[in-house]
Amino acid sequence: MSELLDRTVVAIGPPDEGAMAQARELQGRLTKPAGSLGRLEELSIRLAGLARTCPPPPVDPAAVAVFAGDHGVHAQGVTPWPREVTAQMVHNFVTGGAVVNAFARQVGASVTVVDVGVAVELPPSPHLLDRKVREGTRDMTVETAMTRDEAIRAIEVGIEVADRLLDAGAHTLITGDMGIANTTPSAALIAAFTGADPGVVTGLGTGIDSETHHRKVEVIRAALALHRPSPQDPIGVLACVGGLEHAAITGFILRAAARRHPVILDGVIACSAALVAAAIAPESVTAMVAGHLSVEPGAAAALAHLDLSPLLDLGLRLGEGTGAVLALPIVASAVRALHEVATFDTAGVTDAAHGDASPDQDRRNSSRVGPMDGHPVGAGPVDVVNEP
Amino acid sequence: MSELLDRTVVAIGPPDEGAMAQARELQGRLTKPAGSLGRLEELSIRLAGLARTCPPPPVDPAAVAVFAGDHGVHAQGVTPWPREVTAQMVHNFVTGGAVVNAFARQVGASVTVVDVGVAVELPPSPHLLDRKVREGTRDMTVETAMTRDEAIRAIEVGIEVADRLLDAGAHTLITGDMGIANTTPSAALIAAFTGADPGVVTGLGTGIDSETHHRKVEVIRAALALHRPSPQDPIGVLACVGGLEHAAITGFILRAAARRHPVILDGVIACSAALVAAAIAPESVTAMVAGHLSVEPGAAAALAHLDLSPLLDLGLRLGEGTGAVLALPIVASAVRALHEVATFDTAGVTDAAHGDASPDQDRRNSSRVGPMDGHPVGAGPVDVVNEP
Repeated sequence: MSELLDRTVVAIGPPDEGAMAQARELQGRLTKPAGSLGRLEELSIRLAGLARTCPPPPVDPAAVAVFAGDHGVHAQGVTPWPREVTAQMVHNFVTGGAVVNAFARQVGASVTVVDVGVAVELPPSPHLLDRKVREGTRDMTVETAMTRDEAIRAIEVGIEVADRLLDAGAHTLITGDMGIANTTPSAALIAAFTGADPGVVTGLGTGIDSETHHRKVEVIRAALALHRPSPQDPIGVLACVGGLEHAAITGFILRAAARRHPVILDGVIACSAALVAAAIAPESVTAMVAGHLSVEPGAAAALAHLDLSPLLDLGLRLGEGTGAVLALPIVASAVRALHEVATFDTAGVTDAAHGDASPDQDRRNSSRVGPMDGHPVGAGPVDVVNEP
Repeated sequence: MSELLDRTVVAIGPPDEGAMAQARELQGRLTKPAGSLGRLEELSIRLAGLARTCPPPPVDPAAVAVFAGDHGVHAQGVTPWPREVTAQMVHNFVTGGAVVNAFARQVGASVTVVDVGVAVELPPSPHLLDRKVREGTRDMTVETAMTRDEAIRAIEVGIEVADRLLDAGAHTLITGDMGIANTTPSAALIAAFTGADPGVVTGLGTGIDSETHHRKVEVIRAALALHRPSPQDPIGVLACVGGLEHAAITGFILRAAARRHPVILDGVIACSAALVAAAIAPESVTAMVAGHLSVEPGAAAALAHLDLSPLLDLGLRLGEGTGAVLALPIVASAVRALHEVATFDTAGVTDAAHGDASPDQDRRNSSRVGPMDGHPVGAGPVDVVNEP
């Protein structure tokens, strides 16, 4: 590995059981029937364990990093989209015209675009981080997609970007990606780490026909047969059949976990990178929040392997970080409940579960009415409108 | 009916097929693979049809109305929670301490609390609309829960509140409710309108034991056997086995539909009221967005009857509007994509589906980078961060 990666992995630890117990207990005192917030209660407890404190810090502000790279395996005809589209879409991201930009504006998240391996030289832009490790990967059906050193350098790009965003004040990281053909290395990684058959975990990507899908499955089979990557050597797997953006997302996730901040996973590309991260540092899963369930079948296989349940299931298959961004307000709301919701004892609400009516109608109407510190919704405390 | 209700119903019309076709066509030109936004594409097309224009207006700002009422059927022991909790929770809402308040702050929505039928006199508050029709419903196992006139007056409360919020600038309405025992009238309404057996559509509410659940089902059976309500007379059904907050939500939905604004449905209480609205004016379904799938089995039955698919499935069973509020940013993002995402022709991105590469790299970097008009996220255009 490398010194930076070593340090990152060493810093990753288990969830704090004490903070989780506190969050569980607090959820039981909030003014609502116990368990009535379902998945959000579980999530808030997990995030308390990650943060090692209850309540955990607010989820906002959040930052999306879109890692872009190209793929040598594109030459095998796994997609009808020309490779040039990766660079074109990078331009679209930096000018704010892509779906992830629109969705991020909706939830107040920033978007950072990182060239970790686009196949062509990109015009410099103040809105683009040039961290190109190489101009696209090699064709995994012919040779390893990356050298081990290149894979590690791309992981380090992800670590650096996570640091940059967290140091700038982000509380939550969101994975994004762009790379024409990148569902192919994703499926290869998922097959390698879960042991699933490539035919089961390979999807239609951007919407390919059945002939292309058949070819894509065979390409993945051929690459796995050529390299026989071992899950015991996760960086080796990544180098053989991964992508530069997959490597960067792996580093991004690991650094979030090391610094104990949540990282919301987008679709199949992020899920495959999460398998690499979990193979390198199993406790990194503590920091992962599965934003949504991609239509790509590999996403479900990867999430099952990680024992994560996606928050959303909206039939998305776009990537870019879009599904993870949509999940952000749900994650933020789960944590916000622990900060702002009154408890039975302070609110003078009778708790059926414990029968302890304490109708203290003089409860101090304190900070709960106002917005939480670091609250990103500039509309301000418009709450409790009566006579608008 | 009443003059106000009549006028409301008459104003409800079908979706605009032309606007829907425009939205469908625009979705195909945005810089993403066709169909890759899944459910959000369908939703954006529906909302264009509702608004009769493409793109439809922004979804924000949104306003939640929490309608509170009590239930005579509480006397039958259908819940362990004392009836006083309805009034206690109203106090919690108006002081901003409930879950719906916290979630609404997260997404910049306002919360308006309306007493349409709480069983006790509530202290006046500048944050509470007093529109009490009566102090709780009657016991539906003994007599009709409301007179027809009371049901209509409660519907009119919902109409008035919808007008108030829309006139104050809300673009989207969100249903909220509070009423101890109100899953019982909800299940009764759902059984009456869908024809389902009460045993199938009656859930555990706030978390009752199996003995109480058994009693609840028998109570609903008894009420339906007593009144034999006919779905052909929706206001009659509502009066026999509904609740005052159900009636108000019915009016709230109908007015949103009449004024062609989306209304996001929360859980089983809203879904049962939506059945009443759809029975009164079938085209009101055009305005309905199913925010989430409540754990209560009646919610799924009602949504299936309305041919609506919920956006979220998070194991929620709280009510108050919480699940609908969580869905708001998703609805807003669906519409935002139509406003802000670049098209293949303007962005210089090659479209694999049409093969029309038009790499115009000089595309004007216009309003897409800035926030959309009416954008509620005060964090401002933090999008495309590079060197924070």
